[in-house]
Amino acid sequence: MTNLEQMAQNAKLASYTLSSLNTLTKDSVLLAIADKLEQNKDIIMQENQRDLEEAKKMLDDGAISLSVFNRLKLDENKMRDMIQGIRDVKRLEDPVNKKLWAMGLDTGLDLYRVSCPIGVIGVIFEARPDVIPQICSLAIKSGNAVLLKGGKEAYYTNVILTKLIKDTLNEFEQFPQNAINLLFTRDDVAQMLKLDKYIDLIIPRGGNSLVQYVKENTKIPVMGHSDGICHIYIDETADLKNAAEICVDAKTQYPSACNAVETILVHESLLENYLPQLVLELEKAKVTVKGCERCREFVPHLELATKDDWSTEYGDKTVSVKAVKDIFDAIAHINVYGSGHTDCILSQDQQSIDVFMNLVDSAGVFANASTRFADGYRYGLGAEVGISTAKTHARGPVGLEGLVIYKYKLFGSGQIVAPYADGKKTFIHQRII
Amino acid sequence: MTNLEQMAQNAKLASYTLSSLNTLTKDSVLLAIADKLEQNKDIIMQENQRDLEEAKKMLDDGAISLSVFNRLKLDENKMRDMIQGIRDVKRLEDPVNKKLWAMGLDTGLDLYRVSCPIGVIGVIFEARPDVIPQICSLAIKSGNAVLLKGGKEAYYTNVILTKLIKDTLNEFEQFPQNAINLLFTRDDVAQMLKLDKYIDLIIPRGGNSLVQYVKENTKIPVMGHSDGICHIYIDETADLKNAAEICVDAKTQYPSACNAVETILVHESLLENYLPQLVLELEKAKVTVKGCERCREFVPHLELATKDDWSTEYGDKTVSVKAVKDIFDAIAHINVYGSGHTDCILSQDQQSIDVFMNLVDSAGVFANASTRFADGYRYGLGAEVGISTAKTHARGPVGLEGLVIYKYKLFGSGQIVAPYADGKKTFIHQRII
Repeated sequence: MTNLEQMAQNAKLASYTLSSLNTLTKDSVLLAIADKLEQNKDIIMQENQRDLEEAKKMLDDGAISLSVFNRLKLDENKMRDMIQGIRDVKRLEDPVNKKLWAMGLDTGLDLYRVSCPIGVIGVIFEARPDVIPQICSLAIKSGNAVLLKGGKEAYYTNVILTKLIKDTLNEFEQFPQNAINLLFTRDDVAQMLKLDKYIDLIIPRGGNSLVQYVKENTKIPVMGHSDGICHIYIDETADLKNAAEICVDAKTQYPSACNAVETILVHESLLENYLPQLVLELEKAKVTVKGCERCREFVPHLELATKDDWSTEYGDKTVSVKAVKDIFDAIAHINVYGSGHTDCILSQDQQSIDVFMNLVDSAGVFANASTRFADGYRYGLGAEVGISTAKTHARGPVGLEGLVIYKYKLFGSGQIVAPYADGKKTFIHQRII
Repeated sequence: MTNLEQMAQNAKLASYTLSSLNTLTKDSVLLAIADKLEQNKDIIMQENQRDLEEAKKMLDDGAISLSVFNRLKLDENKMRDMIQGIRDVKRLEDPVNKKLWAMGLDTGLDLYRVSCPIGVIGVIFEARPDVIPQICSLAIKSGNAVLLKGGKEAYYTNVILTKLIKDTLNEFEQFPQNAINLLFTRDDVAQMLKLDKYIDLIIPRGGNSLVQYVKENTKIPVMGHSDGICHIYIDETADLKNAAEICVDAKTQYPSACNAVETILVHESLLENYLPQLVLELEKAKVTVKGCERCREFVPHLELATKDDWSTEYGDKTVSVKAVKDIFDAIAHINVYGSGHTDCILSQDQQSIDVFMNLVDSAGVFANASTRFADGYRYGLGAEVGISTAKTHARGPVGLEGLVIYKYKLFGSGQIVAPYADGKKTFIHQRII
């Protein structure tokens, strides 16, 4: 048995104990972790500094980008938010041990569907060390064990954060020490993906290539999202007073976010009188606008958007505009080229809104609001494990609810199946919850 | 584009329309299918006869077993149950378009989590032609498109059933014809597993080797179960009056079912005075009992059960008995050797029952009832798509609820994210549902 296999097996054993911890214990652990990190701010900063020194060289060599460097850096504000985040998770409702549904099968034979932790979760993320306390606190609250693999650029910071968290766990006798585990290398990841015997879910938090790599190399269920190709469709009945404002916000408020808009679909009837104004507003906000042939008839200076553009997540202040002949044309475009993340209709017509929301096959379907609202915190989920564009288990921004599943508990009083199978007894099937 | 890829793409397009059909339309289609099959009983029987003639040769050659042959055969009773099954699904509550959760983010900005179909589901099953109407009716009710691959032994029966169902769909103008699709070969399955662009979920209904093959060859989420290694633990406080009766039922009522018991764990304190009686009762019911070394001290004639037995799904009237020193020993055994399907404690002590139910990591944890109750119909789910031993999406017997996911619908009135990000506006996050 390799070290990693042993680690995963230990995590599995820990997960059984974790699943039966009460809320008070889990909350006490969370508060203690927050305090521990607060008391050790200086040492965390020092270790982060070691990472930053290495990263600075890589930045100077062009091996990493400025944005990676910035994400790696833990300043006072990020430290405060990171610690506050743990206390916020403590305040969330415990998602475990909830009776979700119940059915009386017969007298003295009651069935309950009760929420429980998933078990062992592998999380792969990039160079943002603040992910460690976030994932650990969500895992603790939901009673899951985790195997964490962070970006190598954050090595020293990840090690000290994990050490401080594990030191805290050590102070709680009933808390299993193997709940939290840190992996280090790419080879660890490759090995982890094979451990379907012990690991129940993999969450890759990173770009499309990471997610595809993970899906291709594991039998373990994967929760992640690939691209974020989000659309805004401006319907003929749209309130044009703030349509441009929504488009500008959706593109520029944080252009590299996965919920930023990439393609704006404009109803045919708005091309002549509204499209030029929309483009003007976008350009005022320093957005580069590309347009389809039809759009360029009305705004000739636009760079031509081709079929490739419809599948492109620009990740910067570029957006494409495309004319559509009606709402069904818009929906068809989105269902073909979209990534199932978040798509929006601007319309004052309730029927059009309903049609759009029912037929667009995306995790988020919005009416008259910026796509940038697609986020666990903004949704009020309290915290976000990640965003899922899958169609099973959990979809969209995923909070604690995505880290639990359920089990069926059947409370009998000596019943056997034979008399029900023979027709001598019949089930009553009376819903309790 | 291959034919199969085209079929999957068409199924995807059909799935968008399916997702917005109302309950009345779906129910009318279901009743019409039931009527159509009833009117065409004779022709279905004729085609089934063709399959049976081929199968009879294979049976004589020993290429298939008698149980496969029997499952293939559609008699009057099975035909009636099959048609009744469709009408039963019609009566189930529509699982689509349910508001599961809702949050007011701010005035005029309301978020709803609403259930919706998964999309396109691939189902692979063995030689039981009655699966086709069952899966089709569940798919129609839940608004999913399906690609079905049945056993080749049921070729003619599968073809006629699918044809009659598709003929019925044709009579409903608003119903997409490509909702139901039949595949024929192993190569079709291999191709289907690659179509993660169009297919959202694969349900393999078959043995462990099929499930493993599917998991190894696809990036699409898989819902299935591998083995059914179920346990009964007889606690020292068990009501011994009917403990043997429960064990006999769990083993013999249908020995090849996945929810039949394979290993009975007996508390140390019961070995001397109860184990011999238990073995006697099992043997009276023609069960072959194998025992661990410790058990053989008290019942010497038992064949020795070794480590391999703890991982064996006998599938016949064989059971192993093993002594455990306490409930934690029993739980540890189950979590190592069990398959996460269904495990039972016989005990009169509520605390022991709670400990067992919380710590045993299985889809079904039972107290004082036969493991054979683990079944969608018996659970009152109305119908069963399959049984899942996975830890995500759906677990245990899966009814209609396992064929839906949710989307987030955000109803705004022109909101943008910038003022919330700047702190000029704050979210109210008021739960609506």
